[in-house]
Amino acid sequence: MSAAEYLRKAVEYDVTGRKLESLKLYETGISALFETYKSETDAAKKKYFQSKISEYMKRAEEIKVKIKERQSRGEMKEKIHILANGTGYGYEQIFGKYLDDGVKEIALEEPYLREYYQLINLVRFCELVVSKCRFLSYISVTTVAIPGTSQHHDQKTAFQALTNDLKSRNITLKFDFSEQLHDRQIILSNGYVIKIGRGLHYFLPADKFCLGQYNYDFRKCKETNVDIFYCPENKTT
Amino acid sequence: MSAAEYLRKAVEYDVTGRKLESLKLYETGISALFETYKSETDAAKKKYFQSKISEYMKRAEEIKVKIKERQSRGEMKEKIHILANGTGYGYEQIFGKYLDDGVKEIALEEPYLREYYQLINLVRFCELVVSKCRFLSYISVTTVAIPGTSQHHDQKTAFQALTNDLKSRNITLKFDFSEQLHDRQIILSNGYVIKIGRGLHYFLPADKFCLGQYNYDFRKCKETNVDIFYCPENKTT
Repeated sequence: MSAAEYLRKAVEYDVTGRKLESLKLYETGISALFETYKSETDAAKKKYFQSKISEYMKRAEEIKVKIKERQSRGEMKEKIHILANGTGYGYEQIFGKYLDDGVKEIALEEPYLREYYQLINLVRFCELVVSKCRFLSYISVTTVAIPGTSQHHDQKTAFQALTNDLKSRNITLKFDFSEQLHDRQIILSNGYVIKIGRGLHYFLPADKFCLGQYNYDFRKCKETNVDIFYCPENKTT
Repeated sequence: MSAAEYLRKAVEYDVTGRKLESLKLYETGISALFETYKSETDAAKKKYFQSKISEYMKRAEEIKVKIKERQSRGEMKEKIHILANGTGYGYEQIFGKYLDDGVKEIALEEPYLREYYQLINLVRFCELVVSKCRFLSYISVTTVAIPGTSQHHDQKTAFQALTNDLKSRNITLKFDFSEQLHDRQIILSNGYVIKIGRGLHYFLPADKFCLGQYNYDFRKCKETNVDIFYCPENKTT
């Protein structure tokens, strides 16, 4: 796609409330436009590109602020304290009821997606949200990258396989890498934010051929707190 | 337990409708009583044991017939044709609605429980029935044994782990081995019988890190037919 196409799509998604996807498109479009600007020699055109870049950058910043605000406002809807060795706390039990037709975009912030069991938790998270949110079209995952190790290879393979699978279901999955990430949260575009102290990884391992290997409701948990917020203003869809 | 204790429990379960468990107890009790009979020298006592053995054998046979009848009667409640490569046919979708508080015993007849994926399907079947049937106390599994191979070792390990796990949930799991078994069916003590052409194993494998690895509703299926029967007279609980 050209810079113009990226930006046209960014504006379209911006207006229809697909903020996460829109932000990504603005960023890509702005980069492409900047390349055009650099190679342009005509002074008038250069100036025009410059003003356009500023304009889109401003808009992208506004969206970023809006997305950021989602997590810092809102009323507390539910508080769940998961006790050590407790059971009955599968993802669906914890936040399944907030996954509805109003969820078109999801931002998952989870620093640890590198060990096999963590990658599996991501797959299971995706299985749940895809099965519950009929109009889901975009998932952004922010995590900490682990370059240059064998774990990195697993991470890359898993991310690629999952991206392709979701693409076949008309859902875009995008990964962002951040070194500073420490918060763990799931931001839904219907206005709900789910904060789990241990992120997706609050389960103890299950013994082989025992209940809990597949149904997480049977799994014993590690102690953690879940806070669920709701803010109507957070709603983007 | 002594012969008398086994038989006392057998009668108790027989009366309260736990037929499968009762049958197992009758059989064990009769064997134990037969040993006593053999070693007894007093003619009068020998005669008494003999009459008792006949009596319990007759009752066990009656229960066996009753259990056998469950599958051969009843009205067809539902017919599901699963198409090749179809999705949305996880166990819960197919027969979840028949798993209710009325199910106290389940007889699963599944000839193939030897490969890893087949053993996993058994674990997942147990996860589902345990989560749905609150008063479940007994599961009997009849399958074909595979003595003396490395698969046999896996089978034994899996059966043992699963038995122990269910025991900790107050559910007795018993395995029977039969060479002639070919039918595949799930007999519920609330009167429903679920017959799946391919038994528990009608799923195609899912790619690694793709949707369907854990949630079978996303799995592509092999073509098969599901027939569900109901007969109020089959009800034993």
